[in-house]
Amino acid sequence: MPDNGAPIGVFDSGVGGLTVAKEIMAQIPNERIVYFGDTARVPYGSKSKATITKFTKQIVRFLMTQDVKALVIACNTMSAYAIDEVEKEVSLPVIGVVKPGARVAVSQTKNKRIGVIATEGTIGSGMYERFITNIDPTVNVLGKACPLFCPLVEEGMLDDPVTDEVARRYLKELMDQDIDTLIMGCTHYPLLAPALKRLVGDKVRLVNPAYETARELKEMLTENGMLNDKPFNEQGKDHEFYVSDLADKFTRFAAEILDNNGINTRKVDIETY
Amino acid sequence: MPDNGAPIGVFDSGVGGLTVAKEIMAQIPNERIVYFGDTARVPYGSKSKATITKFTKQIVRFLMTQDVKALVIACNTMSAYAIDEVEKEVSLPVIGVVKPGARVAVSQTKNKRIGVIATEGTIGSGMYERFITNIDPTVNVLGKACPLFCPLVEEGMLDDPVTDEVARRYLKELMDQDIDTLIMGCTHYPLLAPALKRLVGDKVRLVNPAYETARELKEMLTENGMLNDKPFNEQGKDHEFYVSDLADKFTRFAAEILDNNGINTRKVDIETY
Repeated sequence: MPDNGAPIGVFDSGVGGLTVAKEIMAQIPNERIVYFGDTARVPYGSKSKATITKFTKQIVRFLMTQDVKALVIACNTMSAYAIDEVEKEVSLPVIGVVKPGARVAVSQTKNKRIGVIATEGTIGSGMYERFITNIDPTVNVLGKACPLFCPLVEEGMLDDPVTDEVARRYLKELMDQDIDTLIMGCTHYPLLAPALKRLVGDKVRLVNPAYETARELKEMLTENGMLNDKPFNEQGKDHEFYVSDLADKFTRFAAEILDNNGINTRKVDIETY
Repeated sequence: MPDNGAPIGVFDSGVGGLTVAKEIMAQIPNERIVYFGDTARVPYGSKSKATITKFTKQIVRFLMTQDVKALVIACNTMSAYAIDEVEKEVSLPVIGVVKPGARVAVSQTKNKRIGVIATEGTIGSGMYERFITNIDPTVNVLGKACPLFCPLVEEGMLDDPVTDEVARRYLKELMDQDIDTLIMGCTHYPLLAPALKRLVGDKVRLVNPAYETARELKEMLTENGMLNDKPFNEQGKDHEFYVSDLADKFTRFAAEILDNNGINTRKVDIETY
């Protein structure tokens, strides 16, 4: 078993999972992170369960070589399709973003009508619905795939009438069904939160699974006595970042999201794992 | 050497190359096609030269197992980044979509101002500019990456005010510079031709490299005595389609593009080649 000083493995199909890494750094600042982003094969959102499971297992095998003490699946599509397989593969604690997001949405809804916006894969998997109705079978879950949101975020069109119009169309169906809670079920979407908020108004609460995932990770580490009690700056090691392509581009993106100019990203040949 | 009855290998990062396959079927209907689409790792447009070259070589190695007599790189990004490597790897004739598109654009421009719209990778590679100025160094080439066009096409938003607005922004710079010819340098873009035409008006000619590529392939096969002179329906074999993911989804898309309900798509584990 890795000791408490071992890092947390956090992984995603690309850069989106950095929003989860950032929450972990904020909520449990002693923990060191080894991050992997599959930038050579991104996006995962419209690929099959079989392919996503295969890619996920390769990533897990790579992170196991880094002696991590826990795994965080920071990608909704991977969490939805492959968390069971990952749990079978390793004996470490595994946390995905779907369950924490589902749990907090159930605790917040008043009228028991929860909307979920996510990739085609995440919506198609039905996992948010399954987790939510497991907790409370009387909740109505309304899912909507939003394939243009990721490309719009990656084009930097966060505050733009084009994005507003696309969002209006995607959300119309959910708003017509009177949801009072909306899960932003893809790591890119919280960057659209201001645009989404303008559209849904004050009566709909937005749920960001990244925040809830970090909270759940902290709880799990605390309960199992696995927290790192050594201050980060005394550990003599930094967070580590790995990708399957375009390390420099990732470094620039990570520097911005994490507000850290000391990031060094290494490329891994993930298909060999 | 494969005989004249051998098929043509046509490949792309996904479904877009079917527009090239369709042109080949129309212009040289005796030729049989073995198509590969890398639907597990699509899109290629914003990935690195190293990664695209590696993926391309795997695809070429797979197609070589199918005893093809020539290769057509039906993807602009792969043609731009990896055609030299493919030519080194095999002793068969290789045709990419970039050179034929460049050639016809040069023959059509009057004011020697050619615009190119394509993925980030294709624009970043500078290959259209290189081929065009090799033919005529006095031509000005103005490139513009349009990362939202593929997702918009895949959402089916071909005739939509959102797409019109995105196109207006992408093309503004090119129109301001008074181009008279516009290369649609990504296999998805010809599906936006009506929207692009509305925007650029009659004074700008749109170039579709798919058409020119099929024409060049026909010329090459003719010159080298490699044409299949047996009528297609007497060959006893059909076109073949392979993908790395989501074979059923590909079949539906191919049936629509090629107007053929007899398509059967098989999945290949491309990373093992």
